[in-house]
Amino acid sequence: MMDRVLIIGTGLIGASTGLALRAAGFKGRSDGWDNSSLEMDAAVQMGAIHGRAASPEGALELAQLADVIVLAVPVLAIKDWMQKLAPVLRHGQLVTDVGSTKLEILELAGQLFGDEGTARFLPGHPMAGKESGGALLADDALFDGAMWLFTPMGGEMTPLEREWRSWVESFGARILDMDAARHDELCAWVSHLPHMLSTALAALLEDRFGDAPEIAAIGGRALRETTRLGSSPFSMWRDIAMTNTAPLADTLSALEQRLAHLRENLRTPELRDEFALANRFRQRRQ
Amino acid sequence: MMDRVLIIGTGLIGASTGLALRAAGFKGRSDGWDNSSLEMDAAVQMGAIHGRAASPEGALELAQLADVIVLAVPVLAIKDWMQKLAPVLRHGQLVTDVGSTKLEILELAGQLFGDEGTARFLPGHPMAGKESGGALLADDALFDGAMWLFTPMGGEMTPLEREWRSWVESFGARILDMDAARHDELCAWVSHLPHMLSTALAALLEDRFGDAPEIAAIGGRALRETTRLGSSPFSMWRDIAMTNTAPLADTLSALEQRLAHLRENLRTPELRDEFALANRFRQRRQ
Repeated sequence: MMDRVLIIGTGLIGASTGLALRAAGFKGRSDGWDNSSLEMDAAVQMGAIHGRAASPEGALELAQLADVIVLAVPVLAIKDWMQKLAPVLRHGQLVTDVGSTKLEILELAGQLFGDEGTARFLPGHPMAGKESGGALLADDALFDGAMWLFTPMGGEMTPLEREWRSWVESFGARILDMDAARHDELCAWVSHLPHMLSTALAALLEDRFGDAPEIAAIGGRALRETTRLGSSPFSMWRDIAMTNTAPLADTLSALEQRLAHLRENLRTPELRDEFALANRFRQRRQ
Repeated sequence: MMDRVLIIGTGLIGASTGLALRAAGFKGRSDGWDNSSLEMDAAVQMGAIHGRAASPEGALELAQLADVIVLAVPVLAIKDWMQKLAPVLRHGQLVTDVGSTKLEILELAGQLFGDEGTARFLPGHPMAGKESGGALLADDALFDGAMWLFTPMGGEMTPLEREWRSWVESFGARILDMDAARHDELCAWVSHLPHMLSTALAALLEDRFGDAPEIAAIGGRALRETTRLGSSPFSMWRDIAMTNTAPLADTLSALEQRLAHLRENLRTPELRDEFALANRFRQRRQ
């Protein structure tokens, strides 16, 4: 039975997880830790967590008391916490994470949490977010209707793992289990590539036009939608680029080629075929 | 004084122009012509135009009776109509258009409407639209708050030209006069490039994944916003690609290079600089 939870990283996703637990009827205790004491204070004040650790060392002590530890920080920080947690945790505890890439985390989990006597590790990835991050925007309904992906380590599911999955479903999220490499490849295509593309376009326009008033005057919805993105912190994107480099590079390279193809066919009937393909993709998603 | 208007092309922009004129207090007569009799009937029924021509020849006869002829069709069709209209119109009439590119139209206008005795031509481009096209979505407030760009031919403004600009302002649109080449270059960057980019990404994903259910399951807002676009008819985009080829190819080429730069720097500090530039662009536009 899950009686105590520790949430490491009480930003948007971590604090929303705390709120969603309470809203779903979790009666136990939840503590939190965040590098930013502002984020932690906000999470306490809104009731996302009951208490806060005083230091990273204090967080490790709270981790020893927790049934479930949720790592809600960027991927490289998740890997750091995994290294710190593995030696102090024990069989019967569950560590889960919400990181954007899964293969490196799964591999590290195999090294750190694969043996008898170690805690269980369940790699997870809720597909949810907002235009801005931070505990102040946390929302107990953030995961309602969202996908929550898992890339399990294999082996039999522990009772606590089963319970954590039930809590996630009680948030209104739909669970999908995937292979970690496939997860990272798919996320490269449908999440990381669109973000990088948007960043490249916005950076290019900034370089080229700076604050030219005409751009603001004539840029319409297409420009807004292709350059606007959730303002996830750079650290999250740096870690995605660092831990999903090859799949992401492949998608970027494929898009470069596709743009060149389109450029070379601006005056040929091939343009119509590209638009027809694109419309098929869009219509399927309406 | 503008007493009679003929709108050629009674789709979303043409029919909205007719509705906006009425809403702004235009008491004269407006007629219309469209290749699609469905669009024309819809435009008549919603009161965007009083009457409809029976044929393209009939439209040319109505054009001779009109003070202002509005060309609201894709760019190549605008150029066709300019060729047909020039011989039958006379000094004192005004032809204006709403085409997405302006340089080729301006150049043709110089040949056809530049002499004594010819009608006056005012190239225009309202920056307005909806997710879908067609007369049924026409709206008398479509231009309220939008930019309406003009790329005038030079020479003294005629009274009718001045009056048309006043009507446009009475729609709630803000007028900006620009050089036609500059217009086409800027539109390539802030409108055509984002659209082509979105098309390339959607076509690539359709090619690669077809109807794989995982894409629908895990694609989030970033994917939706970077692949979704107003469903302008392909003919409009074909004409944009045909009449703005070189500026558009330049922007595509620049974006290809920018994506390659980003791809080569996924693991270097340069990634941070690209994100910082992109964020500066976004923040300026919030």
